Amino acid sequence: MLSVSPQERAARLEGLVSPDVVEDTDAVAHHYAHAAWSCLTEPGDGVAGALIAEMGVVDALETALGSGGRTTPALEAGRKRWQARVETIEDAFDRAKRAGARLIVPGSPEWPQRVDDLGVHAPRALWARGDLEALSRDRALALVGARAATGYGEHVTGELATHLARRGVTIVSGGAYGIDGMAHRGCLATGGTTVAALAGGVDRAYPAGHADLLGRIAQGPGVVIAEVPCGTPPTKWRFLQRNRLIAALSDATVVVEAGWRSGSLNTAGHASALGRPLGAVPGPVTSAASAGCHRLLREYDARCVTSADDACELLGTLGDERPTPTDRTDDRTRVLDALSARSPRSPDDLARRAGIAPDEVRGLLAMLELDGRVRRGSDGWRRVTSSS
Amino acid sequence: MLSVSPQERAARLEGLVSPDVVEDTDAVAHHYAHAAWSCLTEPGDGVAGALIAEMGVVDALETALGSGGRTTPALEAGRKRWQARVETIEDAFDRAKRAGARLIVPGSPEWPQRVDDLGVHAPRALWARGDLEALSRDRALALVGARAATGYGEHVTGELATHLARRGVTIVSGGAYGIDGMAHRGCLATGGTTVAALAGGVDRAYPAGHADLLGRIAQGPGVVIAEVPCGTPPTKWRFLQRNRLIAALSDATVVVEAGWRSGSLNTAGHASALGRPLGAVPGPVTSAASAGCHRLLREYDARCVTSADDACELLGTLGDERPTPTDRTDDRTRVLDALSARSPRSPDDLARRAGIAPDEVRGLLAMLELDGRVRRGSDGWRRVTSSS
Repeated sequence: MLSVSPQERAARLEGLVSPDVVEDTDAVAHHYAHAAWSCLTEPGDGVAGALIAEMGVVDALETALGSGGRTTPALEAGRKRWQARVETIEDAFDRAKRAGARLIVPGSPEWPQRVDDLGVHAPRALWARGDLEALSRDRALALVGARAATGYGEHVTGELATHLARRGVTIVSGGAYGIDGMAHRGCLATGGTTVAALAGGVDRAYPAGHADLLGRIAQGPGVVIAEVPCGTPPTKWRFLQRNRLIAALSDATVVVEAGWRSGSLNTAGHASALGRPLGAVPGPVTSAASAGCHRLLREYDARCVTSADDACELLGTLGDERPTPTDRTDDRTRVLDALSARSPRSPDDLARRAGIAPDEVRGLLAMLELDGRVRRGSDGWRRVTSSS
Repeated sequence: MLSVSPQERAARLEGLVSPDVVEDTDAVAHHYAHAAWSCLTEPGDGVAGALIAEMGVVDALETALGSGGRTTPALEAGRKRWQARVETIEDAFDRAKRAGARLIVPGSPEWPQRVDDLGVHAPRALWARGDLEALSRDRALALVGARAATGYGEHVTGELATHLARRGVTIVSGGAYGIDGMAHRGCLATGGTTVAALAGGVDRAYPAGHADLLGRIAQGPGVVIAEVPCGTPPTKWRFLQRNRLIAALSDATVVVEAGWRSGSLNTAGHASALGRPLGAVPGPVTSAASAGCHRLLREYDARCVTSADDACELLGTLGDERPTPTDRTDDRTRVLDALSARSPRSPDDLARRAGIAPDEVRGLLAMLELDGRVRRGSDGWRRVTSSS
């Protein structure tokens, strides 16, 4: 167990949360536990999410750091990986204070409720530099794309970001070189609100060449956020999970320019999985840099976005008959269940096994492929295991 | 009424239809009536279409040119406009003969049954120069777009037409400058079959600058057609109706490059109305020349087409498994015969030896290269022997 007294916990939180939190014992326990969980877990740890959903965040933390009791193999495996990181918690608070970061947890007034659609995979906490209110504004649009952008892609991104910002749309992106950077810059240029979601801690600029840009965003009215604590370096996994966070923070996602295998297609896949509108900006069919966008138009039913008007339309379709995330998730799970990691299976076979219409199965497979959960072979589909 | 005897009608048809038609009194009446109707009506005259559907084409013509009987306001109005054109019929036959055109009517073996989906708005007859069989081949794709095309649009059109023609797809277009012209040329360059549907009579090249191109198409294996008789100038209305004909002659329609108000969107609209698959090639969103294509993607649910593969998908199957037409094979054989395994030869040299146009030789060489039968060197082309 953590040998940190309630008084010590309050002291750790000081400066990171609003003063009234520090004076409320329950609020201190709640905030501290969320922050601790964000240190103990990798983003998207569904076992932790399920445990917290079941027990509440404070009791779940005690269970995670204890031993024995009513346990399961998943909980035991979780305990091993979580307890290995107990030492990192104190350091995270120190670093956050030095970086001038703030802590937001589920239930805080600043918490962006959009991310709750991620269910057990939602972030445990968000560490933020800048204007926290930027996270909960109406009409947030993710504008993402490849790092290796062309002049065309950067031009279009700048135009879109500028015009959308003028209409009060918050631009969410990943702070990377190329399209992301132009999205933030175009927004800043008109004094708009922009959110940069990082794969590593907010105390370290990644990429280093964007230290200035991220600093300007944090000066407001924008915000730089991460679900991993300060001091955490970005990794491949954290980039992929950061993409899910960008999609979840936004009412709609537009991919401006992306090659056939760009990571921004992963963001698009998350937006689809969340039932959020997805758009793609076309480009010359002779440009490999737009091949991913055309793929989204062809295979993922993305809307063709050519202007800020078109992008706004995506925000307008909110609340139309979009599928609830739960339904989708359940159907995806059923398809995953029907798949084998070893024997390739046809969509028709999977449709029979899952009890879902073949057409629907094909759509779900496409989304799962985008998420890297399944793999298409010449002989059929397989589930991707964590080891493969 | 028409004061033309059955013998005179047969004489008019001579040279325009197959000899056995001329010897059959009923067939003469049927063909003559259809030809007459194509002179009396503007394309798409639904009143005429309904009358013909009800009475048969011969009796409908008598009713149209007579008076009294059981009549309606629509029939009376029709009679007025049809009877005003009776004098044009004889002229149409003369001009068609001078132009070397042929007459095809519903029920003829060469009649393209696809156009019957237009119902009462179907053409009454088709006047054609070239290979009539080109009209009824499997897998016809309309490749259309703006006259004011950009280098990008022309490049993509040429690529699509070339690759589709190599797979045995018939390319249908409107013979205009810009995208249409490139579609025909790309197809011709590989010896493919192309259909040019004109808004005016096939005896007059429109646009005049495409007289050569239309002449080459008519030399076969392609065909130049119109539903209006020879001598008819194109008008705005006839262009719009010609667009419906392009859509109706094709299993699917792809718009390659088109501005916001391009006439090719009208072709696309007809394809949709006929329930035929519709595709659009995206381009830079900064290019007004692609705005119409993006509109089709956004508003008309067109499929995003980026390659010949994508276009073939609209037709239902990929062209790979399709056997090469026999006439093609003969030309290929002639080129192979003209090649040497040892001495490299230029396309012009081969054209002379094989007695085939240089452009066609280049197309055939490209196909043979694809099959691994010939090899291109810096100094010319050689035949690949089984030992090489």
